[in-house]
Amino acid sequence: MKNRPLILVTNDDGITAPGIRTLVSIMKTIGDVVVVAPDRPQSGMGHAITLDSTLHIEKIHVNEGDYDAYSCSGTPADCVKIAVNEILDRRPDLVVSGINHGSNSSINVIYSGTMSAAIEAGIEGIPAIGFSLLDYSWNANFEHSKSYIKTIAENVLNEGLTEGTVLNVNIPNLEKNNIQGIKICRQARANWKEEFDKRKTPQGKDYYWLTGKFVNYDKGKDTDEWALENGYVSVVPVQFDLTAHHAIQHLNTWNFNE
Amino acid sequence: MKNRPLILVTNDDGITAPGIRTLVSIMKTIGDVVVVAPDRPQSGMGHAITLDSTLHIEKIHVNEGDYDAYSCSGTPADCVKIAVNEILDRRPDLVVSGINHGSNSSINVIYSGTMSAAIEAGIEGIPAIGFSLLDYSWNANFEHSKSYIKTIAENVLNEGLTEGTVLNVNIPNLEKNNIQGIKICRQARANWKEEFDKRKTPQGKDYYWLTGKFVNYDKGKDTDEWALENGYVSVVPVQFDLTAHHAIQHLNTWNFNE
Repeated sequence: MKNRPLILVTNDDGITAPGIRTLVSIMKTIGDVVVVAPDRPQSGMGHAITLDSTLHIEKIHVNEGDYDAYSCSGTPADCVKIAVNEILDRRPDLVVSGINHGSNSSINVIYSGTMSAAIEAGIEGIPAIGFSLLDYSWNANFEHSKSYIKTIAENVLNEGLTEGTVLNVNIPNLEKNNIQGIKICRQARANWKEEFDKRKTPQGKDYYWLTGKFVNYDKGKDTDEWALENGYVSVVPVQFDLTAHHAIQHLNTWNFNE
Repeated sequence: MKNRPLILVTNDDGITAPGIRTLVSIMKTIGDVVVVAPDRPQSGMGHAITLDSTLHIEKIHVNEGDYDAYSCSGTPADCVKIAVNEILDRRPDLVVSGINHGSNSSINVIYSGTMSAAIEAGIEGIPAIGFSLLDYSWNANFEHSKSYIKTIAENVLNEGLTEGTVLNVNIPNLEKNNIQGIKICRQARANWKEEFDKRKTPQGKDYYWLTGKFVNYDKGKDTDEWALENGYVSVVPVQFDLTAHHAIQHLNTWNFNE
């Protein structure tokens, strides 16, 4: 590559999150960085986009001064759309999202704002990666994740990605010495067993908090859950053609009474 | 089936939308209906869930009196979670979402609140269908869609769905005589070419509205876009295992410098 690659950095925890600062510091070592990230946390936003209200962008003062950063009033997917169409003066070579404070493995990919930003970039034809660390705390230690993130990003820049795919990378919360390496995986079959925490308002009306327990039904050793439990960084190629091609034949046997 | 099937009806246009009323009227002819739907429009919400605020449910008075209806302060995916876990006294046999006012074909499945409700049900192991009519107006005429929706729902109840899949059904905005029938399809490769409408606040600050143009890159005659353009009701089986299995082999050739 003649010029340094242009790397767009975003996330769903908001522009002030420690995770995105770490991601910026890694990306600065391999390319020119522009940050466009939500102005507040957007966890659990799935692939939401803002259709019914206006979007606002604010240029942010960055201490280091060696990259541009913008906060956006929208969702992670909005950030990618507005960055590519209104903020950047050329098409980015790579979009990275994260580092998320908390896992986006397995079925969490569906609910993940972090991954929605990566998927939005993929839809626009730009190579993209979502990174997540298995530690929900704001003070999570991202130090041990740096070398893995760097080498995965470099591979994507050098090799490209299969058309119609982006990467979902999850990093176990372990000391560097205890990480076993990087493992290419499939998404484990798992879901959340919801537990609604039912409470009463001071006025005596019921309301609920959504909580739940993650349940992994999948014993496969080729899954992201297995990899993470066994100390590996998991890398799942994710597609946005949701067609269940294997189900088409069965549906074609149906009789419809129209 | 010995008992009448229990059918949960939801949507993303909100509980007062004409589309959901039509869907309820169809479902009442084949089963016992309970409605749990958002208390306001939630279009473009993707697979958002409510993690950072409380959920409220309100029992709604229904004129006909022959089914129960609840409005919920959350997203379409929240509605399915709270219905299954807190409202219904038994597991539904079918979850239907819609009828959406507007298309959810092709890449729109990613942004669709209608489909996120169906996918959430699928994750919980319940057969599910999202229905959309290709007419965005609130006064859309749903009359011609009724027989198609009924026969598709009956087939799902009788035949079940392939594990890990739900159906994305889109209905062209045509007179019944001009509809060619039902076609099983794959998701067309298409996206939105964003056009941000940039304006100034009265105080002179820039802001944006997200608009765009839908672009179909896919000439295949087996796609949902082809079917709809040619007067068919499109049925796409949709999966929530997002793994791009065909991309794994390439990734396994990469060299990582950890």
